[in-house]
Amino acid sequence: MEENKKEKKSSKISELRQDPITGDWVVIAVGRAKRAKEYIKAREPYPPLEDKCPFCFPEETGQEKDTLIFRRSDGDWSLRVLPNKFPAFSRNQALRHWEEGPYFGMNGVGYHEVVITRDHARQIAVLDPIEVAEIIDAYQDRYIALMSKKSVNYIEIFHNHGREAGASLEHPHSQLMAIPVISPGVKLELDGAEVYYRNFQKCVYCAIAEWELKNKKRLIFENDNFLAFCPFSSRVAFEVWVMPKKHKPYFERINNEEKVDLGEALQKAVAMVYHTLQDPPYNFYIHTSPCDGKDYPHYHWHIEILPHTAIWAGFELSTGIEISTIESEKAAKELLSRV
Amino acid sequence: MEENKKEKKSSKISELRQDPITGDWVVIAVGRAKRAKEYIKAREPYPPLEDKCPFCFPEETGQEKDTLIFRRSDGDWSLRVLPNKFPAFSRNQALRHWEEGPYFGMNGVGYHEVVITRDHARQIAVLDPIEVAEIIDAYQDRYIALMSKKSVNYIEIFHNHGREAGASLEHPHSQLMAIPVISPGVKLELDGAEVYYRNFQKCVYCAIAEWELKNKKRLIFENDNFLAFCPFSSRVAFEVWVMPKKHKPYFERINNEEKVDLGEALQKAVAMVYHTLQDPPYNFYIHTSPCDGKDYPHYHWHIEILPHTAIWAGFELSTGIEISTIESEKAAKELLSRV
Repeated sequence: MEENKKEKKSSKISELRQDPITGDWVVIAVGRAKRAKEYIKAREPYPPLEDKCPFCFPEETGQEKDTLIFRRSDGDWSLRVLPNKFPAFSRNQALRHWEEGPYFGMNGVGYHEVVITRDHARQIAVLDPIEVAEIIDAYQDRYIALMSKKSVNYIEIFHNHGREAGASLEHPHSQLMAIPVISPGVKLELDGAEVYYRNFQKCVYCAIAEWELKNKKRLIFENDNFLAFCPFSSRVAFEVWVMPKKHKPYFERINNEEKVDLGEALQKAVAMVYHTLQDPPYNFYIHTSPCDGKDYPHYHWHIEILPHTAIWAGFELSTGIEISTIESEKAAKELLSRV
Repeated sequence: MEENKKEKKSSKISELRQDPITGDWVVIAVGRAKRAKEYIKAREPYPPLEDKCPFCFPEETGQEKDTLIFRRSDGDWSLRVLPNKFPAFSRNQALRHWEEGPYFGMNGVGYHEVVITRDHARQIAVLDPIEVAEIIDAYQDRYIALMSKKSVNYIEIFHNHGREAGASLEHPHSQLMAIPVISPGVKLELDGAEVYYRNFQKCVYCAIAEWELKNKKRLIFENDNFLAFCPFSSRVAFEVWVMPKKHKPYFERINNEEKVDLGEALQKAVAMVYHTLQDPPYNFYIHTSPCDGKDYPHYHWHIEILPHTAIWAGFELSTGIEISTIESEKAAKELLSRV
């Protein structure tokens, strides 16, 4: 409740600042601004949960009302979507651009929601595949609701697991951020896919899927609609991608049969990572076409799972070149040995 | 010594693999390949140093001979440069390209060296500025020696401090990696600087330096030849850049007067970060023009210092957009309050 009061006092939740050199954006979440001493504290170990988990009892801990709720036959909820209590983007403001000398910025207009599953102790690795399909269903529901909003050009769907992977609460949850800019991470892929299409008259992701399904040495799972594999140029050890077998530019168009298959593929992939690396911190996210009103026929949506197996040190931060220590063929072999 | 034997057995130290979508590169350091259980171990706390520190007594711990050594008047060494014992790139092989289906790779041909200062317990934050100038002098010396080597197109100079920032040994040290590809991190800046020059007939870094020197709200230090400031679009809280005031594309052309001034600016900047955040883990690196034989008149070399104040979670990994929690103006103010 204290946080909500603070939020009302200062209407600015965050701002976006553009790098004048590369054109990349950064977000400054001033609504959660910290002083130097709080960064020092953040290096200390995870504090124990003293009160009730806010995601087990959202109605008792000052959470705003649900934007989506799925109920079980006994009336209890199985999944709910809430506005993030500490948003990095907020809709309670007009979009405003500003300049300062050679710099350019805008305020952080957007949406930031949390997708919560019922059970505090059951992470994705131990859910039933059909429960994961329910999460996918919620992603799609909220994606479609947010994509038509004004000023929303990209919707980021991601899941952080474990403190070292940035999960501030232990209770399993995913997040959606609907933002006004197309992220450089996706832009690089969109541009690359377009160049590949021009050069080879083919979707680069389809070429990858075909090769991995035929070659099999990096493949860890497949069903009718999806494949899961360790990508050739994995950035971190034990990276896994889950991808539609057929050419699909838009995640939000996923149908029910595909949702069930994706639930299975994603659960199996996460479970293999969980067993092989003994419950590591990890992130996964969906890369899909922007919702900026343009068409992206050459793009192919997919999920990237990144276990937290490496530290980005000076070389990686400087170059953008990650140093991994295992070939993805060997990583795939190890993942498969735990099934 | 065991590691050296292993290295001789398998001539392949590493390979570079290209992302078929973005064209970015990753390095797979197969020479230091680990199995799954070793990634699990890496999450445990730092082990205590049982034996002699290999950087205090490099001659006693199987290090190869120095490529550079600076001596004090009493005959003891003050700084030395050694080949990295566990290199991510190695010169003992021919450059070889290969293809696999839609993929492209090459072996990790290059050089990987370590720059060590004498005192185990004295990190850059507590060195005299003139001792830091000596480190800069060593960087330049090795840069010039490596830049003319065959297959070297970029030389990365970086410094990791603290376990969370990727420093595997506590003894203060920097690294040089001379690699066959131009890193995407530098490429983005090179391209952006060129576009800015075409649009405004001016170097974007010079425009930034002018603004920060005039405006002063993000400036934390200046002397005749350098300024240090918190960049407008800082990616992490308390990020600091150290930059030549005049337009300088090539780090390796730094003269003696500039080296002394850079030693001072870098030491002061690192010391402010050290005092404000109470000895945080951090990385710094030099971004300079490639040494691929082309001219880069629009580029402006500089040093980026990144304290380890944030976790790259799902959003950051997916989008390439960092979420910071403090405006760089406020960060600059806090840094200055510790001088």
